[in-house]
Amino acid sequence: MATLSVPEPVPSPAEDAESIHAAVKGWGTDEKALINILAHRNATQRKQIELAYEELFNENLTKRLESELKGDFEKAIYRWNFEPIEREAVMAYIAMKKSFNFHVVIEIACVNSPNELLAVKQAYQAKYRHSLEEDVASHTAGDLRKAFSLPLQLLFALVSAYRYDGEDIDVRLAKSEAKVLQELIEENKLNHDEIIRILGTRSKAQIYATFNCYREEFGTPIEEALAGESADEFALALRAAVACIVDPHLYFVEVLHAALEKSDEDTVTRIIILHAEKDLGEIKEKFQKRKNVPLEYAVAKKTSGDYKAFLLALLGD
Amino acid sequence: MATLSVPEPVPSPAEDAESIHAAVKGWGTDEKALINILAHRNATQRKQIELAYEELFNENLTKRLESELKGDFEKAIYRWNFEPIEREAVMAYIAMKKSFNFHVVIEIACVNSPNELLAVKQAYQAKYRHSLEEDVASHTAGDLRKAFSLPLQLLFALVSAYRYDGEDIDVRLAKSEAKVLQELIEENKLNHDEIIRILGTRSKAQIYATFNCYREEFGTPIEEALAGESADEFALALRAAVACIVDPHLYFVEVLHAALEKSDEDTVTRIIILHAEKDLGEIKEKFQKRKNVPLEYAVAKKTSGDYKAFLLALLGD
Repeated sequence: MATLSVPEPVPSPAEDAESIHAAVKGWGTDEKALINILAHRNATQRKQIELAYEELFNENLTKRLESELKGDFEKAIYRWNFEPIEREAVMAYIAMKKSFNFHVVIEIACVNSPNELLAVKQAYQAKYRHSLEEDVASHTAGDLRKAFSLPLQLLFALVSAYRYDGEDIDVRLAKSEAKVLQELIEENKLNHDEIIRILGTRSKAQIYATFNCYREEFGTPIEEALAGESADEFALALRAAVACIVDPHLYFVEVLHAALEKSDEDTVTRIIILHAEKDLGEIKEKFQKRKNVPLEYAVAKKTSGDYKAFLLALLGD
Repeated sequence: MATLSVPEPVPSPAEDAESIHAAVKGWGTDEKALINILAHRNATQRKQIELAYEELFNENLTKRLESELKGDFEKAIYRWNFEPIEREAVMAYIAMKKSFNFHVVIEIACVNSPNELLAVKQAYQAKYRHSLEEDVASHTAGDLRKAFSLPLQLLFALVSAYRYDGEDIDVRLAKSEAKVLQELIEENKLNHDEIIRILGTRSKAQIYATFNCYREEFGTPIEEALAGESADEFALALRAAVACIVDPHLYFVEVLHAALEKSDEDTVTRIIILHAEKDLGEIKEKFQKRKNVPLEYAVAKKTSGDYKAFLLALLGD
């Protein structure tokens, strides 16, 4: 359920481009007017506005906005204006090449369906002229990876995967792999080829079946079993991957909550922007239920100015 | 360049189905008539014949042929009648689940373009309700793999790859990775993560550039450097992967030549059938040049009966 609201009837792309031009031209910028338009148009409409703006004013809208806006608001508008698949490709690139925030890559790899992930990888290749897998793999730098227990081998398996997307499952296999997972978790051997193989290659339906067997056989959900383990980077990555597969909405609730607590605007922006056109409604509902406070309220409390107004508009306020 | 020849004008699918029915009905089978039709129709035409046969005689053509024919001829006809992408998926399945002939998987992974490989993986999933990667990965069985230096990690990387397919290359990277390869080959550390990473993730254009640097810097083509190394299964797999990337036609010439020498009909059938509609012409030319004998002659010398007649028909004789 998207939270994005589009007015009915919606102005034509040329009308919107004119209004945006009026908001940015001359001295100062009318940020409120920009939010009123951009935060209430879907990806196709935003693309058409960009084209209309280019045609009418012979100027690239993204560049103009970059020069007009600043801070978190500018970053948020910049990310928002991408086409959704391309946006995920750009976020993966930034995560691998600049911030090295491996959670972004885990989310993209584990929350998307196999064909959505493939589309992101294709967009990545079209934009950067090499593959996402190469960028993940070339971080591994030989034996350093193992020494530091960095989660790169796991990351690589997750991004490389082109999983089977059907519902067919193999119950016997689920049982035997639940046992494999349980033994390795008990021995605290999280960074083990077999865990990486199971999470990196099995279909989501098969992984759910395995996790169900895990809970039935060993009395604890695998998420809880993992939560008891050490908190090195590998364990954190593994927990994130499991959480993204088991219940992505709950995962985003927890990540948003933590990011708001520590004023990590990049993460707040990323999650709201990536989901406003998809499933931010479900995330909002779950946030309210889990945290006993509306997400809009939590966001409003921790942000300010145009950035705050923009996020709240995307949240459907 | 295909070697398949289709008569002009070609009979209608219903006419072909009638002729096939006449060839198989009653006591005995007219194999010559079958070859005359099936070895001279392309994949689309064969599919239409199958549909027409089913409609006219309420019988599955593949099953009927299986019951009529036998030996290498039957196997060859069975493989030939698949749609090309599905055929590669079936061959990969047989290779992983039955014969464990990892060369088949290496060929499929390294000779196809990234999108062709993806299509094979999609056909595999549609047919077997799980992924090719799972079948390769589940052979790894934990630490056994490393102990036996089996090439499964390499195989897995090659099948998982969704390489960048463009021409852009990074010359500095090619130089540095040529050095990495040279050092590992010199130390005889073939089964090393870095070799697997380079061959498994880089685009083919980038790999060519790296191999060119290798030859220029170290005075030997990488194929030759690898040929001097030990002949364990990992080294064989690595050589096959490199050969499939460097010069697939030459690779197939060598494999065909060796298979004919030792009467390995499965391999002879596989290569002729997989390439008759694509590039068997180039393979024939190179065979003649390298082995000083026409491929048709070499095949005729080592095969017999209807099997021989069928292969020669596919070879364009």
